[in-house]
Amino acid sequence: MYEERIRNADLRNRVISPEEAAAKIRSHMVLGFSGFTSAGYPKAIPQAIASRGEAQDLTVFTGASTGPELDGVLTKAGLMSRRSPFQSNVDSRKAINEGTVEFFDQHLGLMPRFIRDSRHHHLDYAIIECCLVTEDGGVVPTLCGGSTQAMLEQADHVLLELNLAHSAKVYGIHDNYREPGIGCRRGIPIYEVTDRIGTPAIPCDIEKIKGIVITDDFGATPKFTPVDEVSTAIAGHLIDFLKSEIAAGALPEYLYPLQSGVGSVANAVLAGLMDSGFRDLTMYTEVVQDSALELLIAGRMRAASATSLSLSRAGLDRFYSHLDQLKGKIVLRPQDISNHPEIIRRLGVITMNTAIEADIYGNINSTNIMGSRMMNGIGGSGDFARNAQLSIFMTPSTAKGGVISSIVPMVTHVDNISQDVHVLVTEYGAADLRGKSPKERAEIIIETCCHPDFREPLWAYYKRALAESHALHNPVCLTEAFRWHERYLKKGAM
Amino acid sequence: MYEERIRNADLRNRVISPEEAAAKIRSHMVLGFSGFTSAGYPKAIPQAIASRGEAQDLTVFTGASTGPELDGVLTKAGLMSRRSPFQSNVDSRKAINEGTVEFFDQHLGLMPRFIRDSRHHHLDYAIIECCLVTEDGGVVPTLCGGSTQAMLEQADHVLLELNLAHSAKVYGIHDNYREPGIGCRRGIPIYEVTDRIGTPAIPCDIEKIKGIVITDDFGATPKFTPVDEVSTAIAGHLIDFLKSEIAAGALPEYLYPLQSGVGSVANAVLAGLMDSGFRDLTMYTEVVQDSALELLIAGRMRAASATSLSLSRAGLDRFYSHLDQLKGKIVLRPQDISNHPEIIRRLGVITMNTAIEADIYGNINSTNIMGSRMMNGIGGSGDFARNAQLSIFMTPSTAKGGVISSIVPMVTHVDNISQDVHVLVTEYGAADLRGKSPKERAEIIIETCCHPDFREPLWAYYKRALAESHALHNPVCLTEAFRWHERYLKKGAM
Repeated sequence: MYEERIRNADLRNRVISPEEAAAKIRSHMVLGFSGFTSAGYPKAIPQAIASRGEAQDLTVFTGASTGPELDGVLTKAGLMSRRSPFQSNVDSRKAINEGTVEFFDQHLGLMPRFIRDSRHHHLDYAIIECCLVTEDGGVVPTLCGGSTQAMLEQADHVLLELNLAHSAKVYGIHDNYREPGIGCRRGIPIYEVTDRIGTPAIPCDIEKIKGIVITDDFGATPKFTPVDEVSTAIAGHLIDFLKSEIAAGALPEYLYPLQSGVGSVANAVLAGLMDSGFRDLTMYTEVVQDSALELLIAGRMRAASATSLSLSRAGLDRFYSHLDQLKGKIVLRPQDISNHPEIIRRLGVITMNTAIEADIYGNINSTNIMGSRMMNGIGGSGDFARNAQLSIFMTPSTAKGGVISSIVPMVTHVDNISQDVHVLVTEYGAADLRGKSPKERAEIIIETCCHPDFREPLWAYYKRALAESHALHNPVCLTEAFRWHERYLKKGAM
Repeated sequence: MYEERIRNADLRNRVISPEEAAAKIRSHMVLGFSGFTSAGYPKAIPQAIASRGEAQDLTVFTGASTGPELDGVLTKAGLMSRRSPFQSNVDSRKAINEGTVEFFDQHLGLMPRFIRDSRHHHLDYAIIECCLVTEDGGVVPTLCGGSTQAMLEQADHVLLELNLAHSAKVYGIHDNYREPGIGCRRGIPIYEVTDRIGTPAIPCDIEKIKGIVITDDFGATPKFTPVDEVSTAIAGHLIDFLKSEIAAGALPEYLYPLQSGVGSVANAVLAGLMDSGFRDLTMYTEVVQDSALELLIAGRMRAASATSLSLSRAGLDRFYSHLDQLKGKIVLRPQDISNHPEIIRRLGVITMNTAIEADIYGNINSTNIMGSRMMNGIGGSGDFARNAQLSIFMTPSTAKGGVISSIVPMVTHVDNISQDVHVLVTEYGAADLRGKSPKERAEIIIETCCHPDFREPLWAYYKRALAESHALHNPVCLTEAFRWHERYLKKGAM
C-alpha cells in the first residue's frame, strides 16, 4: 500500500518502526519537527521517543503549534527542555510557565532563517510528516509548509513519517521556495495570492534520510471553535467597519487579501463575510481553517495562500472530497514566504489578529497573561500587522466570565505597538485609531471598546493619569498602571 | 541670480516674499513641510507664518525633525495644534509634553502612505525647500527626500522656498520614486544600495505652485555631536561583536549595508569602523551624517543610500567641496523607500539604533521618558529593526549623570519588542540575545549591560520576580516593575 508513495526504490528499504526511529534520538539533540497550527506534524516518532524516555534535554523546533502527540507527550515525559517558536498545547504551556521548559518566542516568519543561521542550534534531526516521497527523494508534506524546507536542508539527518491518511493527490498544492542569500536577492516574484514560484516537493539529500515510518492517522485534529454571541458581535462591528471603508473609497468591494488569526472570533468574521455577500475574496495568511475552506468551496473566496491547512476532522473530509476543485485555489508555502514583509506589504493585506489585552493607548498584549504567563506566542501577528495595509486587532472586552477587562490602563506585556494597530474591535464597537494622538486614542478606546462595567473605572484612571503624569504626551500613572492586574491576582477580579 | 534656478518662465513670475506666502495660510489648515532630521526644511515661510500670527490650529506634517525656524517658531507662536511624525525641537517637545500640541508618532517609512491615504488629513499646502525648478515644474529638493514627493502630489497648493545657499549641482543625487498602487506592484527594483529607479526631480503640477520664495541661508544646521568616552566604549563593544561575527563566518568582511541612528553613539560607531580598518562598507539608512560623509570621502565606504544628508555647517562645506566625487556614491530617496521593509530585508541590513531604556527582557523604550514624556519619536527604528539581518540597540548604561539606570526591570513604554532586538550594547558590553528565552536574556543583560551600581539591585528585583511572579515564562513583579522610575520622579534618583 505505502510502496507507491515511496517512489525511490532505495528509500523503500529504509522503512522502519517508530521505535527504531526513536532509538536514533539521543540526549541534548536539537530536533526540527514539521507542523504548523496542529497541521502536518509527525505523531508516531515523538510518541515513540516519549515512550522510550531515554533522550533527555531535547531542543524542539517546529513551524508553529502541534498537538498532544508531539508537544504533549514530550513535555509529559520530561524530555523537552527548550522550545521555539510557538505552541498551544496544554502541557507544554504548563511546563513553560512553571519554568521547566525554556521557550523562545519568535516571529513565525523568521523561523526558517533562524534554523538556517543559528550556529548555536544546529539541527541533528528533521522529523517530517509527508504524504509522498518522489523518485529523487523530494518530500511532499501533508498539509503544512511551515519550516519544513529549512529543516530538511539544515538537519544532519532526516526521519520521515509517511502518513497514508492524507491523500498523495495533494501533490501540487505546495509551493516550496527558498529565498536566495543576501546579495543575490532580486525580489520574491509573488504578485498575486496564488502565484507559484517554487516546487511541489521539497528537495532532500537521499543520504540524509535515515528512516521512514509509515502511519495512517489524522491524529488529534483541531476542534472547530463554535461561534458565540460575543464573537458574532465583534465580527459585525468589523464587517461594518470594512463596509464603511468601501463606501469611503478606501477599500475595493472585493477587499484586499485577508490575513486572519485562528479561533472563534476569526471564524465568526469569515462566516460574517459569507453572510454579508462579499465576493471575489482572497487570503494571504498563515492558516486556512474550516470557515475559509467553506468560503472557497462556496466560490465566495477566489484563492488562498497559507502555510498550513488546519482543519477539523469534518473539515478534512470536506477538503479531500473537494480536492480537485480546491487545488488550483490554495497554495501552501514555507512560513517565511507566507509571512514575508515584502509580499504582505506589496499585496496590501488586511490583517485581523487577536489580542489578549489592549491598553487605552492601543498597545497589544498577544502573549503574556498578567505579564508573565505565556499563552501561545506572538505567532505571525508582528509579521502581518506591521506590514498591513489595514491592521485590525480584536478581543472580547472581558475574559473569565467578566472578572477581567481586556481593555486596561497599561498592558503588562507589549507584542504589537500602537503604531501597528489601526483599528481595535470588541463586541462594543470598532475604534479607528489611525492618525490619532495617545490622548485621542485613549478617549475613543474607553468609549468604544471597553465593557460598560469597566468604563467608569477606566475613565477615572485616565483622569488621574492626566492629573498626575510626569508629562502629558502619553499620560500614565506608573504607581497604578498595573493595579487592575494586581487586584485580579490577589482577589480574582479586576 | 535665482532666475537660472527657475527654468520655467511662467514660474519666474510667481516669485513672492515670505510675507506674501504666509498670507495664504489660514487657520485650521493642514500643512506638509519638507525636511528630515534638520535637513531640507523651509525656513522663511514658517517664520513669516509665525510672525504674522493669524493662522491658528495648524496641523503640521514633515518628513521627520526640523529646526527652530519651523517647529520652534510655529510652536512659540502657538499656531501648531497637531504634529506628526517625528520632532526633536526643544519647543515642540515642550508643547507636546505639556499637552498643548497633539503628537501622532509614526513609523517614518509609512508617512508618505499616511499623506496619500488619510482622508481626514488632506494637505492644503505643501511647503517645500528646493534648489532648482525644472522647465516642466519638476522640483529638485535640497538635501532631503523625505515625504516631499507625497506632499507635492497630494497638496491642493504648493509654496516653494528656493534656497540659493545649496548648489543646483545636487541635481542628480535624488532618486524620486513612487511605489505603484496595490494590485499593480511588481517589486521595488533596488538590489544594490545605490540602484536608481526614479527621477532626479519630483514632478509637480505647475498650476499648483502658488509662489516661490527666494532664500540664501543654510539655517540652524545640526551641531556635530562630539564623541565621548562612553560612546567610544559602546562603539568598541559593538565593533568587537561585528568582528566576532565575521570570524564565525556569519558576516562578510565588508559587512552588510549599515543603518545607523543619529547622535554621539552613532558617530562613535562610524568613527570606530574607520579606525578598525573596515573597507567597502555601504549604508542603507535614513540619515547620512558627518561621520558617514568622512567614510565616503576617505573611500572606506563605497556607497550610501539615505533619505537625508544631515550635516553640520562644516560638513556642508566638506560635502559641496567633494560634490563631484560624492554624487555617484550617495542616493537620496523618499522615506518610504529608504525605510521600506522589502529593501531592508532584501539587502540584509545591519541596523544600529539608540534606546532610551531597555528592560531585562530586551524590550526597548525609544520614545517616552518615564512612560509619558515624548523625546523625538519612534523614527525609523521599527522599520529597520524588524526587517534587519542583525538588529543592534545601543544605550549608555546610565543617564543624567548616573542617577538613572538605562537598564530597568520593565520599560515604561515599548517601541521595539524583544524579538526585534538581537544585540543590546552599553559601555559595559554587548549582550547577544538571539535564540534566548526571557530568563536567559535577563541574566545576560544584567550581567553584561547594566552599570555596576545598579547590577545588584537589578539582580535583587529579578530574584523577587522569580519568587513572586504569577508565572515563570517571563517573570515580573507587577507591584514593583516601575518602582525605579517612581523613585526617580519623587527623589531625583533611581
